[in-house]
Amino acid sequence: MVGKPLIAGIVAEFNPLHSGHASLIRKVREAGCDAVVVVMSGNFVQRGEPALFYKWPRARAALACGADLVLELPLPWAAAGAERFALGAVSILSALGCVGALAFGSENGDAAGLQRAAKAVCSPALRPLLRKKLASGIPFAAAREDAVRELFGGETADLLREPNNILGIEYCKALDRLGSPMRPLAFLRSGSPHDAGGAPDEGEFASSSQIRELILNGRPFSRLVPPEAGEIYRREMDAGRAPALLKRAETAVLAKMRCMSRGDFRSLPDVSEGLENRIYESARAAVSLEDLYARIKSKRYPLARVRRIVLSAFLGLTADFPRLPPYLRLLGFSEKGRRILNTAKKTASLPIAANVSDILSLDKTADNVFELENRATDLYSLCTPCAEPCGLEMTCACWERKYLFGYSDKRNKL
Amino acid sequence: MVGKPLIAGIVAEFNPLHSGHASLIRKVREAGCDAVVVVMSGNFVQRGEPALFYKWPRARAALACGADLVLELPLPWAAAGAERFALGAVSILSALGCVGALAFGSENGDAAGLQRAAKAVCSPALRPLLRKKLASGIPFAAAREDAVRELFGGETADLLREPNNILGIEYCKALDRLGSPMRPLAFLRSGSPHDAGGAPDEGEFASSSQIRELILNGRPFSRLVPPEAGEIYRREMDAGRAPALLKRAETAVLAKMRCMSRGDFRSLPDVSEGLENRIYESARAAVSLEDLYARIKSKRYPLARVRRIVLSAFLGLTADFPRLPPYLRLLGFSEKGRRILNTAKKTASLPIAANVSDILSLDKTADNVFELENRATDLYSLCTPCAEPCGLEMTCACWERKYLFGYSDKRNKL
Repeated sequence: MVGKPLIAGIVAEFNPLHSGHASLIRKVREAGCDAVVVVMSGNFVQRGEPALFYKWPRARAALACGADLVLELPLPWAAAGAERFALGAVSILSALGCVGALAFGSENGDAAGLQRAAKAVCSPALRPLLRKKLASGIPFAAAREDAVRELFGGETADLLREPNNILGIEYCKALDRLGSPMRPLAFLRSGSPHDAGGAPDEGEFASSSQIRELILNGRPFSRLVPPEAGEIYRREMDAGRAPALLKRAETAVLAKMRCMSRGDFRSLPDVSEGLENRIYESARAAVSLEDLYARIKSKRYPLARVRRIVLSAFLGLTADFPRLPPYLRLLGFSEKGRRILNTAKKTASLPIAANVSDILSLDKTADNVFELENRATDLYSLCTPCAEPCGLEMTCACWERKYLFGYSDKRNKL
Repeated sequence: MVGKPLIAGIVAEFNPLHSGHASLIRKVREAGCDAVVVVMSGNFVQRGEPALFYKWPRARAALACGADLVLELPLPWAAAGAERFALGAVSILSALGCVGALAFGSENGDAAGLQRAAKAVCSPALRPLLRKKLASGIPFAAAREDAVRELFGGETADLLREPNNILGIEYCKALDRLGSPMRPLAFLRSGSPHDAGGAPDEGEFASSSQIRELILNGRPFSRLVPPEAGEIYRREMDAGRAPALLKRAETAVLAKMRCMSRGDFRSLPDVSEGLENRIYESARAAVSLEDLYARIKSKRYPLARVRRIVLSAFLGLTADFPRLPPYLRLLGFSEKGRRILNTAKKTASLPIAANVSDILSLDKTADNVFELENRATDLYSLCTPCAEPCGLEMTCACWERKYLFGYSDKRNKL
C-alpha cells in the first residue's frame, strides 16, 4: 500500500475480546494499515444482554491488544438487529472522516463477493419474490436466501448462510447507503464459528460465546484470551464488577414488564404486526426470564430478537430514536489514537465527545441518546455481582477511571 | 347486652394471625358480640413490605379462627401511615352500616381514655404548641406527647407512648371524623409488645413480628399460631407461595427507583418538604435495599415511613388517590358472614364487590384503586419463592381459589 497511512476501522463487541480478535487486529496491520479504530458496543450487546464486562475495561482490553482508538456504539444501535447495528457502527467510522478501510472477519474472506451479495439483497427485483416466499410461511432468512438463489445464483445465495458473511453484507450495505468512501477489507475468519458452544478445537481460536460459557461457569479461560486482556478481566471479576448477567436483574425485568401496557410494548423497537399482544400476554404469564423468552419466541421471532425486545422494555428503549448516532463518544485511545483524534477534529462530521460536558453542549437528540445510555448503565450495574451507584456515565472520561477500573492514563488526556 | 345482635368490627393485618389475635376474637364474642367482621390489609402491609402470605390464605385463616366476614383494606390505606390506615379501615366497617362496635386490643384496655386522648390530639389548642415543639427539632411523636402533657395532663399523654394505644386513638379519631355510630371496644392487650423481637415469655402470646422472624429463619412456629391457621400457612410455604420478601424483588425496587426523577418521587404519598431530593440521591447511590433505607432514614423520617415510601415507588402508588376506599371488597365469609352480607345489601353505603365484575361496573375512582391493587398483586408475586403469573386479582372471588390456595367453598358462594 502506498500514499497516506491507511487507518482501518473495526466493528466489535469484544464480549470478551479473545485471541481471534487480537489476530484480526494483527492481520489488519499486516495488510498495511497504520492504525486501527474500533467501534465497540457499550454495556449492552446485540444479543439483548449485558456484556460480561463494563465497556470501560473492555475498551481498555482493546487498547492493550492493539487498537488505537475505541469509540462507543450507542445503545440504540448496539442493541439492534444486524442491519441497524451495522448502519450505526459504519456511520461512526465514516463520520470520523479519516478512516480508509472497514476491516472485518467473514467466512468467505472476499469483500467483492460480499459487496455483490449486498447489491443482490437490496435489489428492487428481489422484493416481490421475497414477499411471495414469506407468504408461504418460511422464516425471513430462508426466504431471502431462496429468492437470491433464484435471481442471482447459488454462489451469492450461499454467502447468506454464514453469520459473519451476513454481517459483512450488512457492512457493505451500510457503506453503500451512507455513500461512504471507506472500502471493505474482508479477512478470512478462523477459529470456532460465531456463537459456537462447547470447547474450541485444538489450535483454533475460541469464540466469544465459548469463553462466556467458561467464565459464567467459573472455569479457566485465560489461555483463550490475550494475556493483557485476561488480566483486565480477572481484575474486574475479583472486584465483583463482572460477569454481568441479566438473570441477576430478573425480577427487575419481570416487574417492569408486568407494569407495561400493550401500547408500551407497541412503542418498542422491532415490535410490529401485533407482536405487542404476544409480548403483553407473555409478560403477564411468565414467572422467569427463560419462561418469558420461551413464550415470546417463535419460528417468526427468533430468540435474539426476542431478547433485544425484552432488553429494550427493561431499559426503556423505544423506537423513536434517530436514524444515526449523533456523536462520537470516546472510550479510550493510544498515543497514535490521540493523533488520529487530532486529525479527526478537522475531518469529523460529528462532534467528538471525550467527556460529559462535550455531550451536554449538543442538541436535544444527543441529550436523549445520552440520557438513555445513562439509564442503561445505571441498570447494567444491577446485573453485576456487586452493584455500583448510579452515574458512572457522568464520570466517563477514560482517564478518570482510576478509582473504579484500576487505571489512569494522564497521558491519555486529550 | 340486649336488643339486636351486635356485630363487631376488627381492623387487622394478620401477618400472620397468631394466638393473640384468635384470643381477641374470642374475647369480642365473650363480650356479647354475635359476629366478627374483619377489615384486613391486602398483600402489602403498613410496615411497607409484602405480607408473608397472600391475602387469600390470610383471610382463610381469619375465617378458620372465628371471623365471619373478611373485607380488604385496599393498598392506598393498607400501606399508609397510622392516621390514614385507621381512617380507611374504620370507614369500611362504618360503610357496612350494620357493625355496632369497633373492637381492638390496646395497652390500656380503656376506650374512654383513648377517646379523650383522640379529642386531645385533635384539639385546635394543641397546634401552636406542637408547632413550637417541632421547631426545636424533636421528632413528631415526642413533640406531640410533650404538648398533650402540658395541655391535657400526664395520664392522657402517657397513652401516646404505646403503639396499640396510639392506633386505638387513631380509630377513635376516625370514628369522630366519619361521624360513625360504631362505639369503640378496647380490650386489654396481652402477650409480647407490638413489633417485639426475640422469643415470647413463657405462657405469653408471641407477636406477629416474632413469628415472622421464626418463619423467615425457617424455625418452628406452629405452637404460636392457632392450629387451623398454622395448617394454612404450612400449605402456602410448601407450595412455594410464601414467605414473601421484598428482598427477593430487590433489583426490581432498585431498578424502578433508578429510573425515577425527582418529580416522580415528589408525587409519592407522604413525600414533602424536599424529601424527594433525599430519596432521589439515595436511590442513585444505594446498591441494596438495606443501603437504600439507611440512606433515606433520619430522626425526622423513621424507618417505617421510609419503607412505605420505597414501597409506594415500587408499586407506582402516588398521592392522588381518594380520601376513603370506594368499595367493600370481599375476601371471604362464613355462613353467618353471608347473613351479614345479606343485611349489608340494604344498609351499606358503598358497593359490595364479591368479584371483579362488581368492581368493573363502578366508577373511575374504583377502577383506579382496583388497577393499583392488580399491579400490586402482580408485583407481590415476584416477592414469593415461586412467582405466580399476573392476574390473580382478576380471579379473586374466594370460592374460585381452589386451584391456587387449596380450598373451594361452593357453599361460600353468595
